[in-house]
Amino acid sequence: MNLQDFIRSIPDFPKKGIIFKDITTLLKDPEAFNTAADMLYNFAKNLGVQKVAGIESRGFVFGSLLAQRLKAGFVPIRKPKKLPAQVYSASYTLEYGEDTLEMHQDAILKGEKVLLHDDLLATGGTAQAACSLIEKAGGKIVQVSFLIELAFLNGREKLKGYDVVSVMRYESE
Amino acid sequence: MNLQDFIRSIPDFPKKGIIFKDITTLLKDPEAFNTAADMLYNFAKNLGVQKVAGIESRGFVFGSLLAQRLKAGFVPIRKPKKLPAQVYSASYTLEYGEDTLEMHQDAILKGEKVLLHDDLLATGGTAQAACSLIEKAGGKIVQVSFLIELAFLNGREKLKGYDVVSVMRYESE
Repeated sequence: MNLQDFIRSIPDFPKKGIIFKDITTLLKDPEAFNTAADMLYNFAKNLGVQKVAGIESRGFVFGSLLAQRLKAGFVPIRKPKKLPAQVYSASYTLEYGEDTLEMHQDAILKGEKVLLHDDLLATGGTAQAACSLIEKAGGKIVQVSFLIELAFLNGREKLKGYDVVSVMRYESE
Repeated sequence: MNLQDFIRSIPDFPKKGIIFKDITTLLKDPEAFNTAADMLYNFAKNLGVQKVAGIESRGFVFGSLLAQRLKAGFVPIRKPKKLPAQVYSASYTLEYGEDTLEMHQDAILKGEKVLLHDDLLATGGTAQAACSLIEKAGGKIVQVSFLIELAFLNGREKLKGYDVVSVMRYESE
């Protein structure tokens, strides 16, 4: 099974010049969905992960699955003003604009082994901001995993020093 | 294990007078998280579910888990302008404001058995709008499941005719 066959490319979304990788066509296929989850689980199964942090909102889909399979807790990293208790915040620039992420201060304990997951690695700014939140809480990042990596955008540069893995890698647009 | 012990009540969030039920304290505990997922799975396991639709963004957490356990596809129902292909839209009023939901037109096939999941049943407007999207695509809704039901808001009224289930039920604020 070639998982890339289940990804739909949509030109000029969310704005002109960007070719959007639509994962909904993979998620709706039970076999492709399960195969992708297996691969993400296999990357992480021997790392002793205690918490899986997923970035809102597509990162919740496989982040939640990974947490259950790894018998870890799940931590949502969210857009501003969505989390109700005390948060840490981090701002970042992304491919098209600027944004902020928040995480509950009590979500991760000092020294806990954390896997960060998001659906897409583009320029890496979002994941880098999420890493800073996890580390502010004292978490130890043991892996950063993605469903899709847009390798031509060099997002790995911003995540140097971490174990970065991806299920599908695109070398060009 | 009493799952309600893992829910944190936060007064005056997102605005004055509302007591917000924070599920992040449940999600971060591996045992509570898994117990809640087991209960949702047990509600649905004999219904022949083919697609699980989850409402952005907290509905993605257990929606995705349910889809995998039921060997079904996962369908994200999202806020406006997030889904890149052709969508159906439905507007609704909610506890504090008005909003719109969208679903890809090709997410569900005519006659497919669909489980709709969200984390919280409050007044029922959000779930009712999501049901209308699933039915517009020709899906047959076999269950509507929630992690938390605020029974005192009578959300079930808006979901008459559906099999509505919830893991935790609050009879009063």
